Amino acid sequence: MVPPHRRDEFALIDAFTRPFGVPASPFGPGDDAAVLDVPKGHRLVVTTDALVEDVHFTRATFRFEDVGHKALAVNLSDVAAMGASPLSFLCALSLPDDVEDAQLVAVARGMAALARKAGITLVGGNVTRGPKLSVTITALGKIPSSARPLCRDGARPGDDVYVSGALGDAAAGLAQPRPRDRQRRPAPEVRLGPALLGLATACIDVSDGLAQDLGHLAAASRVALELTAKDLPIGTHAKAAATSGPQALNWALTGGEDYVLAFTAPRRSARRLAAIAANLRRRITRIGSVVSGRGLWLDGRPLESTGFRHR
Amino acid sequence: MVPPHRRDEFALIDAFTRPFGVPASPFGPGDDAAVLDVPKGHRLVVTTDALVEDVHFTRATFRFEDVGHKALAVNLSDVAAMGASPLSFLCALSLPDDVEDAQLVAVARGMAALARKAGITLVGGNVTRGPKLSVTITALGKIPSSARPLCRDGARPGDDVYVSGALGDAAAGLAQPRPRDRQRRPAPEVRLGPALLGLATACIDVSDGLAQDLGHLAAASRVALELTAKDLPIGTHAKAAATSGPQALNWALTGGEDYVLAFTAPRRSARRLAAIAANLRRRITRIGSVVSGRGLWLDGRPLESTGFRHR
Repeated sequence: MVPPHRRDEFALIDAFTRPFGVPASPFGPGDDAAVLDVPKGHRLVVTTDALVEDVHFTRATFRFEDVGHKALAVNLSDVAAMGASPLSFLCALSLPDDVEDAQLVAVARGMAALARKAGITLVGGNVTRGPKLSVTITALGKIPSSARPLCRDGARPGDDVYVSGALGDAAAGLAQPRPRDRQRRPAPEVRLGPALLGLATACIDVSDGLAQDLGHLAAASRVALELTAKDLPIGTHAKAAATSGPQALNWALTGGEDYVLAFTAPRRSARRLAAIAANLRRRITRIGSVVSGRGLWLDGRPLESTGFRHR
Repeated sequence: MVPPHRRDEFALIDAFTRPFGVPASPFGPGDDAAVLDVPKGHRLVVTTDALVEDVHFTRATFRFEDVGHKALAVNLSDVAAMGASPLSFLCALSLPDDVEDAQLVAVARGMAALARKAGITLVGGNVTRGPKLSVTITALGKIPSSARPLCRDGARPGDDVYVSGALGDAAAGLAQPRPRDRQRRPAPEVRLGPALLGLATACIDVSDGLAQDLGHLAAASRVALELTAKDLPIGTHAKAAATSGPQALNWALTGGEDYVLAFTAPRRSARRLAAIAANLRRRITRIGSVVSGRGLWLDGRPLESTGFRHR
C-alpha cells in the first residue's frame, strides 16, 4: 500500500534531525517511541497544531526556515497560554516529491533555532509522502502541580484585561509585500506564560485575532469584556502600513497571527504584572475590564455593531 | 492567509469529539492545550505517526471507520513496543472539502471504539483544511520508572527470538479483494507490550515487515539473528490466499503491517512468556536465536541471499 519512497527514509530522518543536536530522550528518536521524564511535582501539558502548504503558507511567501520556525512557534504559543514551560516536541512531516533534501534541512534549521531559544529539542517524529508540505508539531510542556493552569474560563467581573506585545503587525505584513516577518516568524511568549501563573485568572493566545480569541475567553468565563480602542497597543508596522486609523484598528482586532497573550487579572496584580513586564522586557498593556454580562464590547458598543468581524 | 473554512470549525470539532465521550483531561480539549498527570512513579512515552490518503490508504479500500481505527492502532503499536501502557492521545486532522461531516464522524467512531478498548481517550487535537484526508496521531503512554523500556538495542547472544500473533495476513489481504481486515484494522499489542517488561531484552513492532524490522533490531543490538523458516507463525489468511509456500513465507517476512511484536528474551524467560501468552490468549512463537555476528539469517543463509527483500 505504501509506495516506495523516492529517497532513503532513514537518510532523510538523519538529515532532518541533525540540526537539533543530541536527542533529549535517552531512548528516542530512533526507537519506536521517546521516553521522557516529567519533572517531579509537575503536570504534563500537550498540544498539537499543523502548518499546511497553500493553506497556512505558500512557498512564494515563506522561506523553508520560516515554515520550520512557525510550525513550532504556534505550538509553543499554545503551551505558553496555559502558563506552562516548554519541555520537548515531536514533528510529523508530510513531504511532496518536489521538496529537496536541502529544503527539508532548512525547515529543520528554522525549527531548531527556535527550539534552542526555548531550551527544548526534538524527541520524536514521523515522515511520510504527501501531496503538500505539511508540518504537524506536538509540543509538550510542564506546569507545577501546585499551580492552576491558565484556562479560558477564569475571568471574573472586576478583573482587568491585558494583552502582551503589539497587535496587528502580522496582518499588516500580509497586506504588503514587506515587512512580513511578524507573520512568518512569530515569537511565542514562552517566558511570559509561566510568569503569569498565580496572577492571571484566564488566558488565551492571539492566533485568530484579538476579537475572536477574547470572544472565546468571554464565552468560557460567562462574562463581558469592555475594551477601549485607544488603549490597544497597535504595532508600529500596522501603524506605518495602514492607510487609515480604522484599518490599523481592524488589523489589531481581527488580523490574528500575532501570537501574543491576552489575559485577565485582578486589579491588585497590576504592580506585579508591571514588574514582570520590566523583568522580561515585554510590553503588557491594560486594554479593558471584565464586567458581568456577555460578549465583547468596544468603547461601550457591542463589537459586532462596530463593523469589525467577530467570528 | 488561512482561507475561511467551508464549514464551521467549532461544529466540526464538536461532532468529531462526541464519540469519545467526556474528555480525560480536566482542561482540554477546548482550551489551548491539555493538562495531564503522568501517574506517580512513571515516565512518559510519546510517539507520532500519520495516515495519509492515497499514500497509506484509499477511499476505495478503506471505510472511514477503518481510517480512524488504523491511525490510532499504528501509534498504540509503537507505544506497546516500548513496553508502555497507553495513557491518552491527540489527533491532528487535515480535511479536503469533499469529506462530509458524517464521514468525519465515522473516522471518529472507528478511532473511539479502539480507544475505548485500550482504555484511553482523546485529549486534544487540531483540524485544518488540506488537499487529502490525513490523520496524524500523537499517542502518550506510561512506563514504570523502575523498568527498563523495551528498546531495539538490548538483544544478546544466547537470547531467543519471538514474535506474537501471526505473520503475513495483512499482506495477503492486500493481494486479494477480501479478506483485508487484518490490513485495515490491525490489533495493537497494548496488553502484551507492558507484560514483556523485565522479560524481553529488545522489542520492535512489525510495521514494515519482519525482515526489515528485525534487521533494525539486529543492527541496533550489534548481533545476528538466526530464524527458522518452518517456525514462522504464518497466518491462516496468508496460507489460504497464497498460491505457493514461498509466497506465504514472503508475505510473512516482508509483507509488513501485521503490527505484532517481535522481541528477544533470555532462554530462562521461556516459561514466564508461555504463562503470559496463556493469560492474554495471545500466541507467542519462538522463531530463532540471537548469536554473535551481524545481520539476519534464515535457515543458515543470509536473508539477502534467499531472494527476500530486506530493505
